[in-house]
Amino acid sequence: MNLRGRLGEQLVTEEIGGEIFALATKIFPICRSITGNGVRQTLREIGAHVALETHEVPTGTKVFDWTIPREWNIRDAYIKDSRGEKVVDFTRSNLHVVSYSVPVHRHMSLAELSQHVYTLPEQPDLIPYRTSYYSENWGFCMPHRQFENLPEETYEVLIDSSLEDGYLTYGEYLHKGETADEFLLSAHVCHPSLANDNCSGVALLTHLAKRITRLRTRYSYRFLFAPGTIGAITWLARNENNSQRIKHGLVISMVGDGGGPTYKKSRRGNAKIDRAIGHTLRHSGLTPTILDFFPYGYDERQYCSPGFNLPVGLFQRSRFAEIPQYHTSADNLDFIRPDHLARSYRLIAETLDVIENDAIYRNTMPKCEPQLGKYGLYGQVGGDKEAAAANMAMLWILNLSDGTRSLLDIADHADLPFTIVFSTARKLQQLGLLLLDAR
Amino acid sequence: MNLRGRLGEQLVTEEIGGEIFALATKIFPICRSITGNGVRQTLREIGAHVALETHEVPTGTKVFDWTIPREWNIRDAYIKDSRGEKVVDFTRSNLHVVSYSVPVHRHMSLAELSQHVYTLPEQPDLIPYRTSYYSENWGFCMPHRQFENLPEETYEVLIDSSLEDGYLTYGEYLHKGETADEFLLSAHVCHPSLANDNCSGVALLTHLAKRITRLRTRYSYRFLFAPGTIGAITWLARNENNSQRIKHGLVISMVGDGGGPTYKKSRRGNAKIDRAIGHTLRHSGLTPTILDFFPYGYDERQYCSPGFNLPVGLFQRSRFAEIPQYHTSADNLDFIRPDHLARSYRLIAETLDVIENDAIYRNTMPKCEPQLGKYGLYGQVGGDKEAAAANMAMLWILNLSDGTRSLLDIADHADLPFTIVFSTARKLQQLGLLLLDAR
Amino acid sequence: MNLRGRLGEQLVTEEIGGEIFALATKIFPICRSITGNGVRQTLREIGAHVALETHEVPTGTKVFDWTIPREWNIRDAYIKDSRGEKVVDFTRSNLHVVSYSVPVHRHMSLAELSQHVYTLPEQPDLIPYRTSYYSENWGFCMPHRQFENLPEETYEVLIDSSLEDGYLTYGEYLHKGETADEFLLSAHVCHPSLANDNCSGVALLTHLAKRITRLRTRYSYRFLFAPGTIGAITWLARNENNSQRIKHGLVISMVGDGGGPTYKKSRRGNAKIDRAIGHTLRHSGLTPTILDFFPYGYDERQYCSPGFNLPVGLFQRSRFAEIPQYHTSADNLDFIRPDHLARSYRLIAETLDVIENDAIYRNTMPKCEPQLGKYGLYGQVGGDKEAAAANMAMLWILNLSDGTRSLLDIADHADLPFTIVFSTARKLQQLGLLLLDAR
Repeated sequence: MNLRGRLGEQLVTEEIGGEIFALATKIFPICRSITGNGVRQTLREIGAHVALETHEVPTGTKVFDWTIPREWNIRDAYIKDSRGEKVVDFTRSNLHVVSYSVPVHRHMSLAELSQHVYTLPEQPDLIPYRTSYYSENWGFCMPHRQFENLPEETYEVLIDSSLEDGYLTYGEYLHKGETADEFLLSAHVCHPSLANDNCSGVALLTHLAKRITRLRTRYSYRFLFAPGTIGAITWLARNENNSQRIKHGLVISMVGDGGGPTYKKSRRGNAKIDRAIGHTLRHSGLTPTILDFFPYGYDERQYCSPGFNLPVGLFQRSRFAEIPQYHTSADNLDFIRPDHLARSYRLIAETLDVIENDAIYRNTMPKCEPQLGKYGLYGQVGGDKEAAAANMAMLWILNLSDGTRSLLDIADHADLPFTIVFSTARKLQQLGLLLLDAR
Repeated sequence: MNLRGRLGEQLVTEEIGGEIFALATKIFPICRSITGNGVRQTLREIGAHVALETHEVPTGTKVFDWTIPREWNIRDAYIKDSRGEKVVDFTRSNLHVVSYSVPVHRHMSLAELSQHVYTLPEQPDLIPYRTSYYSENWGFCMPHRQFENLPEETYEVLIDSSLEDGYLTYGEYLHKGETADEFLLSAHVCHPSLANDNCSGVALLTHLAKRITRLRTRYSYRFLFAPGTIGAITWLARNENNSQRIKHGLVISMVGDGGGPTYKKSRRGNAKIDRAIGHTLRHSGLTPTILDFFPYGYDERQYCSPGFNLPVGLFQRSRFAEIPQYHTSADNLDFIRPDHLARSYRLIAETLDVIENDAIYRNTMPKCEPQLGKYGLYGQVGGDKEAAAANMAMLWILNLSDGTRSLLDIADHADLPFTIVFSTARKLQQLGLLLLDAR
Repeated sequence: MNLRGRLGEQLVTEEIGGEIFALATKIFPICRSITGNGVRQTLREIGAHVALETHEVPTGTKVFDWTIPREWNIRDAYIKDSRGEKVVDFTRSNLHVVSYSVPVHRHMSLAELSQHVYTLPEQPDLIPYRTSYYSENWGFCMPHRQFENLPEETYEVLIDSSLEDGYLTYGEYLHKGETADEFLLSAHVCHPSLANDNCSGVALLTHLAKRITRLRTRYSYRFLFAPGTIGAITWLARNENNSQRIKHGLVISMVGDGGGPTYKKSRRGNAKIDRAIGHTLRHSGLTPTILDFFPYGYDERQYCSPGFNLPVGLFQRSRFAEIPQYHTSADNLDFIRPDHLARSYRLIAETLDVIENDAIYRNTMPKCEPQLGKYGLYGQVGGDKEAAAANMAMLWILNLSDGTRSLLDIADHADLPFTIVFSTARKLQQLGLLLLDAR
């Protein structure tokens, strides 16, 4: 009937961290961009775990103020020196090529080449990640130290890419619950070999979808795997009329490192998801950072644009752009760990648990306290200083269940974990002391 | 016409601390429980000071989810060793017997006796206070050090008690004021020889009632002396329809020690009583603790159950359960002092003063300031840096008395003591600059 | 069309600090009081810069609870010792005579004279400033050190003053804007030789009026130069019906020292002026003090009396009465400086800028973000960690311009300077991405 009792047994497993890590490892090498075969290959890997529905939207399609761009694919790229040695080789890291680079094959001087090289002078050993989706350009990314040591000579430069009419590809999976009200879980699939941003999020959501599909839930759960920005915009444009079915949502990215956890609230600021995840993180034993909404970041920018204003927040471990690995070659498989992935997974599962089970109950005997002893609910020898604490959840629920407060409201007010409040409420409900308010 | 001017002369007296202490001393030895002759004897002592109305409610009477239990009385109890020596003697401390113990008279081994002995291992010299109202049982309480030294032998155990159909007894006294709106003052009378919890509260309220009866007041004052929990529930059940007459209320307990003061707000959190006593305590020169409501404690649990939600808070000095003397034999007459009792009494009297005199006034000349000098209300030589401070109460009252704010609102906003705001308002009223809003 | 673009060019000039200081210097020696020729002479100096309208209100006129007093003028005053030496000489400092002193010319002992002497024992070298407007009296002010050294002898005391039926004089200047809604700027003109309090404020407003008159503005700007208290009351009494035209207002005093800045909010506490100047001061790089309204101070007391409750706050540098120079001869031309005056002027000009330009706009493409790159509004190479910051104002405006928030709301929410938010909004408006809400 509800998710709750089953979470421990079914959503969370011993092996979950390892399974997520394995999938992240599998999709890490793929050269993804906002369109092209890298996205398709990634969606096929996800589809090996859940019955993913894949959508292809043609180049030129209007989606609000945007237009689906031409599809980009790349086969090879390198810079060769005069001796024919590859000083930069796409096959060793797909970060070497600026995403959406137009094809080029020419010899050129170091001076000309330099116009197309991107480095990080302050992190001289790392390759940066760069894109040029909407302005025709080409470029290479490399460690600054290597770039500084390139001799003055003539280089052969190749980017064997194509930019042609094609499609934007995204995948989604809907787990149907008791109601058509939806919980949206969204991860971007447009970044190439960056492990935390966002192989970690894609892999986590895939395994969450795989497990939730076996459960009966109150809400329907929609998992969306789409390229950042243009993908979310495309989905919103194609689902404009149904978007208000989304009652709660999370954008998931960078969930494999040991930082944070970080939660950025939805634009509404006090949506149920904001309160549920805030509660979960405060009771996690970690030291979470909860941020108010700001209009920069991941796809919550689109979900929270004023015309939609959906209750969708962003869950991460470390806060994006605040770690040195962000958008560099240091965001590799060494940066993410199975135990961190498992912890992130559990935090999300516990948040779903709150959302599923939160409800307003009514005390059926609101005048004075019930005689709890009669129901076997109370220590029998009074006066004991210690007896009090154990009964507090019961007393709080009875006192505050006047039809205006949900269990989450009560848990927050009483500063008790939702799990204890919920299990206590169940006990009171079984004894007839509490009644579920008609939803 | 109102309480205010008279408080100094009539409610508070030089001897009040000593008088309260004397009554507390007198009722301290009585063996009270939630029913029985100990309660009746206590009410008779109160009745020597005020015209108390005593109620007897038969065993078996239904009061909401509860039932009036059988009446418990006890004549004697002891544990004798094999030489006939009383190792525990009820006549030396009534805390020795678990309240509501069923009768027993048997010889038994130390092992069997141990099943019925309660001690405090961490406070080995103190006798704990224990009860077993709603489950048939018997037991003795003793210092842990004594218990550890009991030799292995056969003991004669006697509890000469009775548990029979009878009555629950409580007393109340109503001082009628100008209106039928009531201020409830409630103390529990079910604890045996515990001086602070609650001989202090019973004695304080008795003397407050004795003095207030001579005064004309705006509110009617109801003093309730009833056993904890079941007594308050009984009163609420029998006065269910009239309970909404209670506009303000305080539960009083543990008012004889030098700690705190502590105030626990009503469930409403911003009731007039919450604001009035908060104001009084903040301006008391002490360092008060103001707590939000929580559903554990004294009879405010029942008054603040969601079906009643009365504006009743709890006033104490030290916070209950946070002092080592709580519910032990160390809560004796050495723990309470006349000066602490007098201070607690004054804080309550000052709170009543705020409640009685708070009202909304209107500035009769709201456009610009009145020319205060004309009325002799203002220093004559301007420019003096010091002159300003003395006039602030006057200026605040005139500025904020626009029909939306009461004197207490103004005192809190301006951070001035209510007494100064009220006396200044009276002066302005006499000069026609201020008008009492029709209530 | 609006003030904004022109502020830098027209309201604020290089020389403004020096010009304000020059005017303050010119009016400093004049012996002002709440009536009389000193006020007229001051208004003539203001009138040399703006087309001031001067009002004369006869003695005896009723203004709310007050009455226009007799007009006071003074020609000379001294205390001569027995050798005919002037030990106190009005012509050296007009602070020497208590303002509104009645005429006196007598010989008297030191003992009798002492009854009429005011000093500052804790600041023994300074002359205090004292007045006695509404009770007939006379007196001298002098340094305490000098007073202590006066020998016991007979003194000749002269105050050549007159207190006769006449007029209260004030001046005002109205700059008409696009609407009849007014911004009131008010300075008191009743203090004699006190440079900061308030030659500084009078001179600053005069030059602000002189410059604003050349601009087209949204609001009409009313500049009021009137004696403190009785002047503001007189103006309010004569403009009672039109007072609600005042949508924003500032009382200006003590703006020439280097302290603060200090802003005391209007009685409303969250009026637009309170928010606009609060924003300006927070972004000023200084460490402002923002105070809640209290009913003591300058003419905001009258504007914020409950019957008017106008949105008028008080702007100062140092907080009045908190500096040792306050109301003493140390508040002289050495205490104020052109650069401080210029800074105060700029802060007020920037506040006017916020008030003029704040408005609610609407995002014309509220569903998802517009493709900012299309409009040349966005860095072309993505992924750069630095690119984000520069775009934040744009993203905030688009995200929050849903018809419920003004630019000031957005600037405060995003913690960005209003100037940046406003100029960015203009850019978005020109591109059709933002639309001004119908006012």
